[in-house]
Amino acid sequence: MTSTNDLWFSEYHTPDVRFSIKVTEQLYHGKSEFQEIAVFDSAEFGRFLTLDGYMMLTERDEFVYHEMIIHPAFAVNPNIKRVLIIGAGDGGAVRELARYKGVESIDVAEIDGEVITVCKEYLPQTAVGFSDTRVHLHITDGLKYVRKKTDYYDLIIVDSTDPFGAAEGLFTKEFYGNCYTALKSDGILINQNESPFYDNDAKSAKRAKQRISSVFPISAVYSAHITTYPSGLWLFGFASKSFQPLDFDGQLWNALGIKTRYYNTELHKGAFALPTYVRKLFGE
Amino acid sequence: MTSTNDLWFSEYHTPDVRFSIKVTEQLYHGKSEFQEIAVFDSAEFGRFLTLDGYMMLTERDEFVYHEMIIHPAFAVNPNIKRVLIIGAGDGGAVRELARYKGVESIDVAEIDGEVITVCKEYLPQTAVGFSDTRVHLHITDGLKYVRKKTDYYDLIIVDSTDPFGAAEGLFTKEFYGNCYTALKSDGILINQNESPFYDNDAKSAKRAKQRISSVFPISAVYSAHITTYPSGLWLFGFASKSFQPLDFDGQLWNALGIKTRYYNTELHKGAFALPTYVRKLFGE
Repeated sequence: MTSTNDLWFSEYHTPDVRFSIKVTEQLYHGKSEFQEIAVFDSAEFGRFLTLDGYMMLTERDEFVYHEMIIHPAFAVNPNIKRVLIIGAGDGGAVRELARYKGVESIDVAEIDGEVITVCKEYLPQTAVGFSDTRVHLHITDGLKYVRKKTDYYDLIIVDSTDPFGAAEGLFTKEFYGNCYTALKSDGILINQNESPFYDNDAKSAKRAKQRISSVFPISAVYSAHITTYPSGLWLFGFASKSFQPLDFDGQLWNALGIKTRYYNTELHKGAFALPTYVRKLFGE
Repeated sequence: MTSTNDLWFSEYHTPDVRFSIKVTEQLYHGKSEFQEIAVFDSAEFGRFLTLDGYMMLTERDEFVYHEMIIHPAFAVNPNIKRVLIIGAGDGGAVRELARYKGVESIDVAEIDGEVITVCKEYLPQTAVGFSDTRVHLHITDGLKYVRKKTDYYDLIIVDSTDPFGAAEGLFTKEFYGNCYTALKSDGILINQNESPFYDNDAKSAKRAKQRISSVFPISAVYSAHITTYPSGLWLFGFASKSFQPLDFDGQLWNALGIKTRYYNTELHKGAFALPTYVRKLFGE
């Protein structure tokens, strides 16, 4: 739908940098116990979700984030069966997970049930993930939920917002330690790891990587290009008790026949080859 | 320098997407025979150059573009001696080129001498490139300049603006054919190849790649992340008469001791591993 209104959503990526999208319509606006939730429609990016004014996803480029937070772990370990996702109220990560027939159960720990309700209503493209029968929804703090489990999960995905407000605890050493305990001896932890470009984001990225490295024997960072996130260069963390992120047989993953728009097994290797300034940020 | 003025430079990446940088001061503004030239200062990105309102470079992230348009070719062929750069009025690509002791001559064909004059005055970080004694400046249309040479260059760099206005001719099949003729039998052509993300940019990227492929027996596209360019995901073309872009010995390049902030030989390989949607754009 077009609109004659000159209506723009803007996000300040830093106090001096602003990214703006022309909006055709605000579809939803409300406050939950935890945050301000809004859904907009736009010609360029389709519908998009913001939490406390920060861009969470757009229909146009969410495939990059959701493919990249899920598929690399499965290329490395095709035998993942039990998965915990923390956050992920939009359902996009669950949707990608549900494409693996070998996955037996998907626990979703989302602190804000209203995000799920809103996404089911306005963002079916991602919320479709919740319709899978293997999904078990837990409207609870992921920080607390993960403490209940020991030697249980093959994969934990931390699909969090930024490290302040509701998600602050999901960037602590204590939390990463609890993830370690909740994972099996060959478990993998994947986290959204912020961006290395703007100074404040880079500090968060560095801190998260350091804390994860202090808990897991194997940890690495990989990148993806997400147009609507600050700077466009986004990082994910890969941590494991036994798997090396580049030690995998691409043919095995390709044989699964999972159709993707961003991820492929060559790009998997490329994503771990970081720019020199990002390597330096992580002390490599 | 800080400023209390609420002054912003904005570029429309599409009619519905706007990227804005808070400006402390406009340092230069003028019209040349070919285009409107402006230089601004900003807290987040340092000084930046725009031509006809389009972002050309910022001091903060120009290293990505200039390293990535120069270094991959030298990793593949360390024996490059004669180079032609078309465009490059800011001097950044020349600066990176001049770091190779083996390079004997650098012809620069820039159509707009005023860009060079302005950059020498306001952007010494990149314009420093012009101070190298191996550089020969030709204020002329690159399209015409390249026609004069046959079997002469080891490397041609097309550091052009976007494919409209002054640079339109630098995206034609005729031009690529003339580059082919001007290159030696093991010559390499590198071009800025637009972005694959927004529809109009993607069309330009596809067209350039197709035309180059129709002229050169070997051609490939690689990517880099440039925060201040539309979508942040930018492409470069690598075309050659004999060299494969991934057939190189990283140790040889590393032995040169060239310090970089973005490029490294692992990233070189990763940069050619494109997202699936970009592969499809190029019909792969």
